[in-house]
Amino acid sequence: MSDLHAERRRRLAGLVAADGHDAALITRLVNVRYLTGLASSNAALLVPADGEAVLATDSRYAGTAAALCPGLETVIDRDTAGTLLKRAAGAGVRTLAFEAHDLTVERHAELTEKAGEGTSLVPLGRRVEQLRTVKDESEIALLRQACAITDEAFAAVLPLIRPGLTERQLAVELERRMVDLGAEAPAFESIVAAGPNGAIPHHRPGDRPLAEGDLVTMDFGARCGGYHADMTRTVAIGRVADWQREIYQLVAAAQRAALQAIVPGADVHDVDAAARNMIDEAGHGADFPHGLGHGVGLEIHEAPLLGYGKTGKLSGRVPITAEPGVYLAGRGGVRIEDTLVVRADGPEILTKTTKDLLVV
Amino acid sequence: MSDLHAERRRRLAGLVAADGHDAALITRLVNVRYLTGLASSNAALLVPADGEAVLATDSRYAGTAAALCPGLETVIDRDTAGTLLKRAAGAGVRTLAFEAHDLTVERHAELTEKAGEGTSLVPLGRRVEQLRTVKDESEIALLRQACAITDEAFAAVLPLIRPGLTERQLAVELERRMVDLGAEAPAFESIVAAGPNGAIPHHRPGDRPLAEGDLVTMDFGARCGGYHADMTRTVAIGRVADWQREIYQLVAAAQRAALQAIVPGADVHDVDAAARNMIDEAGHGADFPHGLGHGVGLEIHEAPLLGYGKTGKLSGRVPITAEPGVYLAGRGGVRIEDTLVVRADGPEILTKTTKDLLVV
Repeated sequence: MSDLHAERRRRLAGLVAADGHDAALITRLVNVRYLTGLASSNAALLVPADGEAVLATDSRYAGTAAALCPGLETVIDRDTAGTLLKRAAGAGVRTLAFEAHDLTVERHAELTEKAGEGTSLVPLGRRVEQLRTVKDESEIALLRQACAITDEAFAAVLPLIRPGLTERQLAVELERRMVDLGAEAPAFESIVAAGPNGAIPHHRPGDRPLAEGDLVTMDFGARCGGYHADMTRTVAIGRVADWQREIYQLVAAAQRAALQAIVPGADVHDVDAAARNMIDEAGHGADFPHGLGHGVGLEIHEAPLLGYGKTGKLSGRVPITAEPGVYLAGRGGVRIEDTLVVRADGPEILTKTTKDLLVV
Repeated sequence: MSDLHAERRRRLAGLVAADGHDAALITRLVNVRYLTGLASSNAALLVPADGEAVLATDSRYAGTAAALCPGLETVIDRDTAGTLLKRAAGAGVRTLAFEAHDLTVERHAELTEKAGEGTSLVPLGRRVEQLRTVKDESEIALLRQACAITDEAFAAVLPLIRPGLTERQLAVELERRMVDLGAEAPAFESIVAAGPNGAIPHHRPGDRPLAEGDLVTMDFGARCGGYHADMTRTVAIGRVADWQREIYQLVAAAQRAALQAIVPGADVHDVDAAARNMIDEAGHGADFPHGLGHGVGLEIHEAPLLGYGKTGKLSGRVPITAEPGVYLAGRGGVRIEDTLVVRADGPEILTKTTKDLLVV
C-alpha cells in the first residue's frame, strides 16, 4: 500500500508545483488518510512541490504510523499543523498552500502568527478531493467488499421484518449484522422509515413499530477499510396498496433510466434528468426533492454531486450512488439506491440486492 | 422547553452586548441546538445584543423548527449563515460576532464578501460553550437518564461476556442494548479492549476474541435528548493475576481519591492530581498518559478539561467524567470512569455500576 500512497503524494506535488506553490499543508484528516494510509484524529501532512513529504501525528498514533508508512518521515507532536508549518518555514518555503475549506479562522490565525514574515499561507483549494474522485482498483475492491456486506446484512434481517419491530430495532439489527459480517462500522447512521415516516427522506429511526400495510425504507451501508457503501431498499409489510405499487414501480423505472445514462463522459445533470424526467412525467416531480446521487469513497458524500443544475462530467472508475425517491407527505415513500462504479461498458453495480418489490 | 431556550438566548445577548458587539452569528450546530432546541445539520442563529433572535435552517427541518421553536422567527434558506448575515446587514448591524473556532477560512471569506462595507465580522470567542458549561436541572435529568441506560446495558451484557466473543461483538451488544433500552444512539464509538489491547487507551474494537485471563475494558455510553453518558469498566475473564488485581485496586483507589476532591471551587489541576499522585506513588505515573476527565453534555468532550497543567475551577451543576487508568504495554490495562455532577455536598455519581472487580 505504501507505494500507492507515495504515488498519490507525487500526483499532489505535481498539482502544487503547477499551481506555483512551494508546498501544501494538508490538514483535512480524510485527505491525510488518502495520502498516507493513516487514519488519525490528529494528523497533518506537508507535501513540498519538490522533495519528500513529512507526516505529523501525536503519540497515540506513533506505532500505527511507523507500521503503515515506513518510508515516510514522521514527526510526533500534538500540534501537528504547527510543527509542519515551522518545518516548512525553516526549509525556506515561501508560499504554503492550506486547505481553506478545513482550517477554521481561529486555527488559521494561530498558524499565520507562527509562520512569521517569510512564509505566506495561500489557499490550496480542493486539490486532494479532486485527486480522490477517480478511484484505483484497490479502492474499488474495498467498496465492493463493503457493498457485499451491505447486501448480506439486508438478506439476514429480511426474515426479522414484521409488524411490531420498531424502526430503531430494525436499524440496530442491520448495523449489528454488518459488523458481524466484518464491516469495521456502519458507513453512516442508518435510516429506517416506516409508514408515513417514509415520506421524510432523512428520517431518523424512532420508536414507531412497523405495521401491516407499511412501506419501510432502509438506507444503510457498511464501511470497510474506510470506504463507504450506501444502499436503499423499500419493502412492503404484509400487503401492497395500489398507490404504493405505483410509486414503487415508478421509482424503480426511474432508477433503471438513470443507470442507463451512466457512462464515462455523461453530464451529471443529464444523469439526474434521466430519472427526474420520468418522475416528472408521472406527475410526481415535486415529490422528488433531492439530487439523484453523490460520489462515495473515504467519505459517504464526496464529489461528484449528481443533481438538478449540477455541472461536470462522469469519468470511469468514479463510484457514485443513484437514488431516486418519491415521497408522499403523511402517507409514505419509496427510495431505491445502488452504489455503482462508472465503467466504459456500463455501470458496475456493487449493491446486488434485488430491486423487485419485496412483500414481507 | 421553549422558555428555557429563550432564556439561554437572553443570556447570550447579554454577553454580546457586554462585549460591545451589535449581534452574534452562531454557526456551530451544537450551539444552535443549545440556544433553540433544534438539532439540525444545517442551521444558524442570529442573536442581536438587543432585539429578537432569528433562526435559519433548510426545508428538511422546517416542520421540526416550527414545532420546537414556536416563538422564534425562522427563515427557511439553504444558505443559513448567508441569509442571516444579509438580514443583519439590512438591520444596520455594524459588528457581527462570529464563531472563529467553527467557520472555515473559505466560509468566512464568502460571508465577508456578502457582508459588504457596513458590517464587519469580529470573533465572538467561545461564549456559547461558556454558557453551556454549567447545566440546568433539565439537562442533568437527560444525563441521568443516559447514564441509567448505560448502567442497564452493562448489566445486560455481563452474562454474555465469555471467551470467544470478539471485542467487536461485545461492542455491538452494548450498543444494541442501549438502543433497546431507549437511547437515541450510542454516545460515541464504543471501546472494547481485551488483553494486551487494553494497554491502548483509545483502542478500537477488533476481531480479537476474549480469552481466559484477559482484562477487558469497556468504555461506552448512551445518548438521550442529545446528552452524552460516558462510563468505563474493566472486568476480568475467568481468573485474575496478581499484577491485574494490583493495578485494578490502584486505579479504583485513584478514582475514589479524585471523587473526594471534586467540590465546587476545586481547581481542575488539583482534582487530576488527587488521582495522579496516587498512581505516581505506586510507580505507575508513566502508565497514566491522559487527563483525568472532561465535561460532558451536548458533546461527549466539552469544557472543563481536567488534567495535568489544566487551569480553571469547578462549579456546581457541571457534569464531568473521572477516568484514571493504568496501561501496561503488551500486557493490558485498567480504566474506571464515572459520569458525575459537581455538587456542593459531594459529587452526584450518575453511573452507578459497581466498581468492585468483576470476574466473569
